[in-house]
Amino acid sequence: MSELLMASSAEQTQNPAAMMVVTCNASDFPFNYVQGPMENNPASYEAKLDHTSSHGYMVGIPPKRNVLEEFAYAFRETFFHDDPLYHYKDQPKRKQFWLGLQNLFPILEWGKQYNLKKFKGDLIAGLTIASLCIPQDIGYAKLANVPPNYALYTSFVAPLVYAVMGSSRDIAIGPVAVVSLLLGEALKREINPKKHPNEYLRLAFTATFFAGITQAALGFLRLGFLVDFLSHAAVVGFMAGAAITIGLQQLKGLFGIKNFTTNTDIVSVMRSVFGNIHHGWNWQTVVIGMTFLAFLLTTKYIASKKKNLFWIAAVAPLISVIISTFCVYITHANKEGVKIVGHLDKGVNPPSLQKIYWSGPQLVNGAKIGIMAGLVGLTEAIAIGRTFATLKGYQLDGNKEMTALGIMNVAGSFTSCIVATGSFSRSAVNFMAGCNTAMSNIVMSLMTLLTLLVITPLFKYTPNAVIAAIIINAVVGLIDIKAAARIWKVDKLDFLALMGAFFGVVFRSVEIGLLIAVGISIAKILFQVMRPRMALLGNLPRTGLYRNIEQYPEAVRVPKVLIIRVDAAIYFSNSNYIKERTLRYLRDEEDLNKEHGLPRIEYIIFEMSAVTDIDTTGIHELEELLKVLKKLYIQLELVNPGPAVMDKLLAAGYIEMIGQEHIFLTVGDAVACCSSKPKDTVNA
Amino acid sequence: MSELLMASSAEQTQNPAAMMVVTCNASDFPFNYVQGPMENNPASYEAKLDHTSSHGYMVGIPPKRNVLEEFAYAFRETFFHDDPLYHYKDQPKRKQFWLGLQNLFPILEWGKQYNLKKFKGDLIAGLTIASLCIPQDIGYAKLANVPPNYALYTSFVAPLVYAVMGSSRDIAIGPVAVVSLLLGEALKREINPKKHPNEYLRLAFTATFFAGITQAALGFLRLGFLVDFLSHAAVVGFMAGAAITIGLQQLKGLFGIKNFTTNTDIVSVMRSVFGNIHHGWNWQTVVIGMTFLAFLLTTKYIASKKKNLFWIAAVAPLISVIISTFCVYITHANKEGVKIVGHLDKGVNPPSLQKIYWSGPQLVNGAKIGIMAGLVGLTEAIAIGRTFATLKGYQLDGNKEMTALGIMNVAGSFTSCIVATGSFSRSAVNFMAGCNTAMSNIVMSLMTLLTLLVITPLFKYTPNAVIAAIIINAVVGLIDIKAAARIWKVDKLDFLALMGAFFGVVFRSVEIGLLIAVGISIAKILFQVMRPRMALLGNLPRTGLYRNIEQYPEAVRVPKVLIIRVDAAIYFSNSNYIKERTLRYLRDEEDLNKEHGLPRIEYIIFEMSAVTDIDTTGIHELEELLKVLKKLYIQLELVNPGPAVMDKLLAAGYIEMIGQEHIFLTVGDAVACCSSKPKDTVNA
Repeated sequence: MSELLMASSAEQTQNPAAMMVVTCNASDFPFNYVQGPMENNPASYEAKLDHTSSHGYMVGIPPKRNVLEEFAYAFRETFFHDDPLYHYKDQPKRKQFWLGLQNLFPILEWGKQYNLKKFKGDLIAGLTIASLCIPQDIGYAKLANVPPNYALYTSFVAPLVYAVMGSSRDIAIGPVAVVSLLLGEALKREINPKKHPNEYLRLAFTATFFAGITQAALGFLRLGFLVDFLSHAAVVGFMAGAAITIGLQQLKGLFGIKNFTTNTDIVSVMRSVFGNIHHGWNWQTVVIGMTFLAFLLTTKYIASKKKNLFWIAAVAPLISVIISTFCVYITHANKEGVKIVGHLDKGVNPPSLQKIYWSGPQLVNGAKIGIMAGLVGLTEAIAIGRTFATLKGYQLDGNKEMTALGIMNVAGSFTSCIVATGSFSRSAVNFMAGCNTAMSNIVMSLMTLLTLLVITPLFKYTPNAVIAAIIINAVVGLIDIKAAARIWKVDKLDFLALMGAFFGVVFRSVEIGLLIAVGISIAKILFQVMRPRMALLGNLPRTGLYRNIEQYPEAVRVPKVLIIRVDAAIYFSNSNYIKERTLRYLRDEEDLNKEHGLPRIEYIIFEMSAVTDIDTTGIHELEELLKVLKKLYIQLELVNPGPAVMDKLLAAGYIEMIGQEHIFLTVGDAVACCSSKPKDTVNA
Repeated sequence: MSELLMASSAEQTQNPAAMMVVTCNASDFPFNYVQGPMENNPASYEAKLDHTSSHGYMVGIPPKRNVLEEFAYAFRETFFHDDPLYHYKDQPKRKQFWLGLQNLFPILEWGKQYNLKKFKGDLIAGLTIASLCIPQDIGYAKLANVPPNYALYTSFVAPLVYAVMGSSRDIAIGPVAVVSLLLGEALKREINPKKHPNEYLRLAFTATFFAGITQAALGFLRLGFLVDFLSHAAVVGFMAGAAITIGLQQLKGLFGIKNFTTNTDIVSVMRSVFGNIHHGWNWQTVVIGMTFLAFLLTTKYIASKKKNLFWIAAVAPLISVIISTFCVYITHANKEGVKIVGHLDKGVNPPSLQKIYWSGPQLVNGAKIGIMAGLVGLTEAIAIGRTFATLKGYQLDGNKEMTALGIMNVAGSFTSCIVATGSFSRSAVNFMAGCNTAMSNIVMSLMTLLTLLVITPLFKYTPNAVIAAIIINAVVGLIDIKAAARIWKVDKLDFLALMGAFFGVVFRSVEIGLLIAVGISIAKILFQVMRPRMALLGNLPRTGLYRNIEQYPEAVRVPKVLIIRVDAAIYFSNSNYIKERTLRYLRDEEDLNKEHGLPRIEYIIFEMSAVTDIDTTGIHELEELLKVLKKLYIQLELVNPGPAVMDKLLAAGYIEMIGQEHIFLTVGDAVACCSSKPKDTVNA
């Protein structure tokens, strides 16, 4: 068996070339802490160093940290992993103050380098998204069951606030389809918007206020990581489901259906659509709706084929509105039953601070709805912000972004706005139209202001069918078939989450779909934690490497030795599984050995490189494992546990229990030791 | 830089010794699948194999599994990781049936080898735990606010059912302190036990029924792993808190206090005790109570010092009952205000099936309380079962055990029993008294039957103070100071969980404490998942090994290369953190480099051995990272990703995106490649 010993020592051969690296490194890098080996290890641990192989290293124990340091580390990594104070380091007080101000109002930062060339891009982008957002707003207001003005108010105030405080350069702010639908669904359940329009609006402002508070609080308390709990797959499914639901809601306007259901699930809506087919549809409306829908979808298709024609799709909605409004005005089609937007009040946002419910049961309802809408809004805005930040290569601070969005919505709730966030479709157009900074949001906001002050009466004759067609056209982009196909190809469990969220939204409601999405995401985390992967390792012939025998069919087992790699921190949630799985590996291998008349297993080597942490339950289970294996005359050997693990194993007395001579730096060392030892020392 | 190349190649030196291992292994192990390299890799992946080093291996891709296989794997590892059908494999039908029967009724298995010698041990153990359990039961009945008979009924039926179906050999079944307290607290909140004793009992049976259903369902649905979600530390804290609460409740009996609070928190109880000090205490009761408490604690202390005198502590409670009852009977102390147990009905369990609430609001209340009591009972029983199974070296099937406990409690709810589970204190005595099988539970059960039929009237004059002293003596053992000290020493965050659960129970209620324990446990899991540890690696001088530079101060950095080890599966919950943490490592290293005038980082090597899985969000973030690094002219290299990861990276097109030549088998290979390449190929 001495061949085995030599073979595995190959991994740490001392050759002159290796020596030269050291020299070169040591002189190049002054911060390399080239110290004597094991300087930090407790003396008692070091004393028994008698088995290490030629390389002279043993598993290190990091310098001991005290309780406060430990807590501080965990706290920092949880809440301040992005090291937000990095830029303030070693700066004079005055500079620090200025940096802090810039941090709070990024406009101070990009405003300094702002120039005419940048403004040109922002102006074009701003005008484009304004032309998109005004007709969309009218539709989204319907989803939220509020008069169209309120969505336009939102497109005026929210982008202004965001432009001053937000750090994304590409996001387009305003009311969005999914949040408006969610808001409309949830608010309607509390107050009937037709019977009590004033109370309904008051509750809407209350919800908007709490959406803002939720967002700002998450950002301020640095809990931004909570949005990471919605997995990408669940979001794709949720968005697609919401798009279908919103599209279905538009059938009312598109076909001019009179008695439309107030439910949003697909079954109720379909019954409503086909139940009214004979006397509920209005053929003029159908003609207008379908014509413009076809026009819009065609321009979208053209734009998707030729990226430089994106502006055709961008201006198509405005053109549709102008043409259709003109036609209706000329033909008096509204007298033939074609529903039109109707009268809109001129003027800017009335204050609404005094309308928010500050007490009573509606305060609680508003808070509940607001928290939900705020979280969905955040998820959408952060996803958009991150996507475009990556495309343009800048960093986005999630927590700062949340604070900005939150303050924006709080300000909105005081000025008659509903919940605003970043819109997928408009942000994409903004990006493609060449926006450079948040200035494009300011341009859009000013255009909306102009609309509110001057143009609103012109929308009177705009047919609802065109608005419906514009909304359908906008939400089609939320259905990401490509992403779904890719998720199916890559990860089937993720696809299950996607379908769960999708069907939840389509067949029940947005809220149920959201719950399913979050539930599946959390279940996936728990599964991952409870059932960590483990692998049997084998030796790659002609090397000192040990690799997963499932992944490397050429890897060969070492006789009498079972090498198991544990690929997770050992915590209370998985330690019992790890113990039992190890015993099952042992049983299965022994069965194979018996079948082939091979010698029984005498050693189990735990490759623990990936075990970065352990808790008291984990140590307890390792002790139990040691006891069980001792009864079976099998010696446990540990390889390369992480620093925190060594620290805790030492504190718990486990290292003394297993024996310091059974902890190795490499699998090769452990295999060499197992193979060289005479049998009778095993169970000493 | 060619030295570096050679140094890192040292890890896979081809030397004759290594070759010999292969030969020896290949001939010894017929199941080693010694195949040609890369047989399973897709041709396109293999074709570009141009950069691998001398050992000729590249990162393997495991054979493709289809959707069903993937689901089956995840399902099996979640619910059937213990491979319960292992013993049925390759057995004739008849034998399979017999094994199935044995599996359901383990008594058939151990009964076959049962003999007189074993019975001797079981008889002694059974008599000992019976002497313990009868006075304890009277006290526990008080905690649950039911007449003492019902606890005795429980100690008769439950152990009989368990003995037939349970697989632990050492557990002692019956009512236990913590569950009785929890039951009493929760039931009292719904129905006043003094005003409506019958309704109260009915609700108690309903709760017991649902406790059993919960336990059986968890076992049957193989959801036993759910008990692993309570961390050891939380359980230690919860148990200690419950012990304090129970001990405080006994002060009423111990001091003979008349107007005792019905709350269980420490503040209310202390106010009750000291508010009544002048006219509420009964001095005769105090004398009796303190004398016997001192006696019991002394015997406990003696037993803890000399293990072979454990029987002194075991019989002390019975002796206390006999002596105190006799004294009170002789002295008529009950006429001086010493409270006594009073009249107990003779006879066995009346049926209670018809008393369970099968409908109405009390059904829901009973179910809620039952689920909670059932889960706490399970946690206690499984912890005890596992501990003693390890001590004696046998395996315990958690799911089977839960089914047995569940059926036992359902049977109990039909026969006037309250929730039973394994008792910490009595199980320890059972073990020390030398029990061999569940027969000791049968002996105990029969002794309880005898008591019910014959002896109950004798308890009439037993002073409550002695029962209180016995309970205090029993629950003292639930306070595990040693475990708490060890947890403090090993893991400060675990200690925080312990204290949270402890204070929750002591200052609020058992339920609040339980909620805190579960909450902290789950928060810990989420923290672990969201913030995986990562480490910078350096080269150990004179070797080809790369290790954590924090743990090994002698490890030196490689110039221009940043080696980062990721120690977790990359999922939606942590992928953004991993990306941002990587960029922070990069920034900090660049700062250090600038400070020391060293060359800038040109390569980032991701050591991914521990990355066992990845999901679509994870791949997405890796893509983003690749893009960001490309902008910074830094090349990303991946080392040794796990099989599932390779599989998904390939499916997602990531391998094509990064380039197959940037995936390496070892860190050494990657370092060698980085150092040998001319600069201009980096950003190709």
